[in-house]
Amino acid sequence: MQEIGIVETKYFTFAYPPHRLKLDLGEEIGPVTIAYETYGKLNKNKTNAILILHALSGDAHAAGFHADQNRPGWWNDMIGPDKAFDTTKYFVICSNILGGCKGSTGPSSINPETKRNYGLSFPPITIRDMVRCQKHLIDYLGIQKLLCVAGGSMGGMQVLAWMTDFPEKIRSAIPIATALRHSAQQIAFNEVGRQAIIADPNWSDGDYYGHQIPSVGLSIARMIGHITYMSDISMARKFGRIRNKEFSSKFLANFEVEKYLHYRGNSFVKRFDANSYLYITKAMDIFDALENSEKANNLKKFNGDILVIAFKSDWLYPAYQSKEIVRVCKQAGINVSYCEIESTYGHDAFLLEVREQTCLIKHFLNKVFSKTIHEK
Amino acid sequence: MQEIGIVETKYFTFAYPPHRLKLDLGEEIGPVTIAYETYGKLNKNKTNAILILHALSGDAHAAGFHADQNRPGWWNDMIGPDKAFDTTKYFVICSNILGGCKGSTGPSSINPETKRNYGLSFPPITIRDMVRCQKHLIDYLGIQKLLCVAGGSMGGMQVLAWMTDFPEKIRSAIPIATALRHSAQQIAFNEVGRQAIIADPNWSDGDYYGHQIPSVGLSIARMIGHITYMSDISMARKFGRIRNKEFSSKFLANFEVEKYLHYRGNSFVKRFDANSYLYITKAMDIFDALENSEKANNLKKFNGDILVIAFKSDWLYPAYQSKEIVRVCKQAGINVSYCEIESTYGHDAFLLEVREQTCLIKHFLNKVFSKTIHEK
Repeated sequence: MQEIGIVETKYFTFAYPPHRLKLDLGEEIGPVTIAYETYGKLNKNKTNAILILHALSGDAHAAGFHADQNRPGWWNDMIGPDKAFDTTKYFVICSNILGGCKGSTGPSSINPETKRNYGLSFPPITIRDMVRCQKHLIDYLGIQKLLCVAGGSMGGMQVLAWMTDFPEKIRSAIPIATALRHSAQQIAFNEVGRQAIIADPNWSDGDYYGHQIPSVGLSIARMIGHITYMSDISMARKFGRIRNKEFSSKFLANFEVEKYLHYRGNSFVKRFDANSYLYITKAMDIFDALENSEKANNLKKFNGDILVIAFKSDWLYPAYQSKEIVRVCKQAGINVSYCEIESTYGHDAFLLEVREQTCLIKHFLNKVFSKTIHEK
Repeated sequence: MQEIGIVETKYFTFAYPPHRLKLDLGEEIGPVTIAYETYGKLNKNKTNAILILHALSGDAHAAGFHADQNRPGWWNDMIGPDKAFDTTKYFVICSNILGGCKGSTGPSSINPETKRNYGLSFPPITIRDMVRCQKHLIDYLGIQKLLCVAGGSMGGMQVLAWMTDFPEKIRSAIPIATALRHSAQQIAFNEVGRQAIIADPNWSDGDYYGHQIPSVGLSIARMIGHITYMSDISMARKFGRIRNKEFSSKFLANFEVEKYLHYRGNSFVKRFDANSYLYITKAMDIFDALENSEKANNLKKFNGDILVIAFKSDWLYPAYQSKEIVRVCKQAGINVSYCEIESTYGHDAFLLEVREQTCLIKHFLNKVFSKTIHEK
């Protein structure tokens, strides 16, 4: 299978004062920079653009390789020539979310007014604010209507926000392993992660830039995350009860699963900002795709196709939440397909179950794209 | 229904040097004090004694009221006149585990040799060490053979340790919502809790007695615990997405479920020792009921009855783990009954599903007890 090859992250800045970006919860911010990448070519009619939306810890680098790195983008298995999102046919865009720490404006960015990192002076943001920024990017790229918006987990929440906030701007949508709104359990896990960060003395009310970062707290938050991303059975298969032969002294990690969590926690703190973690998880928790009747009515204006994908062993975003999306779409008169993939990978499945997702998405996009050709 | 009334915790001390208690992992300790309570009367033949085994955060105070408190013991719904463990018929004993912090010797106890709290100089302990201490207590009470050992969660692990370590000392056993050994996922949750404690600067390598305690870390550990004790649906029913009407600033808890976790975390630190949490969770993680062929062979020496109870919505100790206990018992030729109770309470169900557990346990004990009468 061919690969995309070397790619570069680009940057788009808008909302220069005084034209600041109005945010969902009342505050405003500007200027806003959005980091993004594109793969494939935009066709003449600009009808082949697909927007990929990333999850909590993702970034704009969804596919291909950066010149200085030997690890591909986070969804490289799904994006490329002849892959699920076929870059020989489609123009694929992925941008880092507002509030993130991978090139887009977020709490770790320098506030041009104060010349200091925003920290907690960064305004509270919502999933809809992230989508609002993506809309600005799409306008800037001259795209009237996206062929598709697709993403898993928090990426799926952004898909749902596109459907309710800009229904006329998308032809189709693929929410994967996601929910209309977080359950109490999902909020609870996020809250414990946030508390672990806030409890770290290095967090210093978010004002740690240039000092020791709250790496221990962020690492614990990530460890909790990783437990919820895997399934009981995938953990059992991967680690079982394997441990160092000697009984390591007292509370040192001696089970493989403990070492794995430590490794994951420690590597996460090198690439992610603790304040971004706080802002983004809070945005996830307060998101409600149908928070008011306006949003529910907007959904009826969407006249494209939806493919909803869930995974059997995903207990963080259980299949019943995807079925709720299906039900809501049906009630809004939307043409919706649903597929629950047999997987043991838990929530991580949206990153790992490539073969089956590729089949589903490829056919879905084919159908949607052929409709646009007939339209013309 | 009648109640037990006022009860008192008693203390039994043994293993005075030089006769120290030899521990499973090679070290030894002495003297050892075990806090315990008893309810009902031991009969003349001493055949009606039941030992109740508590879970991670439990204590010897299983039933009745302490004179100065208005909250009953942790399993008061199950222990008392005409209850599941009927104190008009049975002599019920419950003791605080070794390593605990509710009157039994543990890391917060004063080491008589140094006159200081043990802290991390406390030796590593196992579930089998806890049971070894209970055996000393039973001997001290003059009981040759227990009618039954029963407990949920970590209490169930102790039940399994009784079955493999002292099979000739028990007539029956009731392991509830437990496992032969922890899965990778169960270890993982415990490890994150431990890391939260260890990350707390007040923990000071376990040497915090008389100073600020690591309350923030212990509170986070407990919050994680509480999420795993409930089910997705019980959390949804209890809290849903209810939150303070105003969008509380930034990261303050504004969802009910967040406030609940904070409350639970904060109240736990007032009544539990962080080092005990570390030692006990590690003991749970390294426990394996059938860790070697000797233990498996011992099981065959047990000729009593077993009642295994699991709960449908318990995802921390899923029913498949209870079924493994059943399978192992069957293979050892033991007379085993299994019941999976339809409950939405998750792991907490062993504390909350009183009616159905009462039915099952009452009949089971009746049958076992009537056998002992016919024996004589």
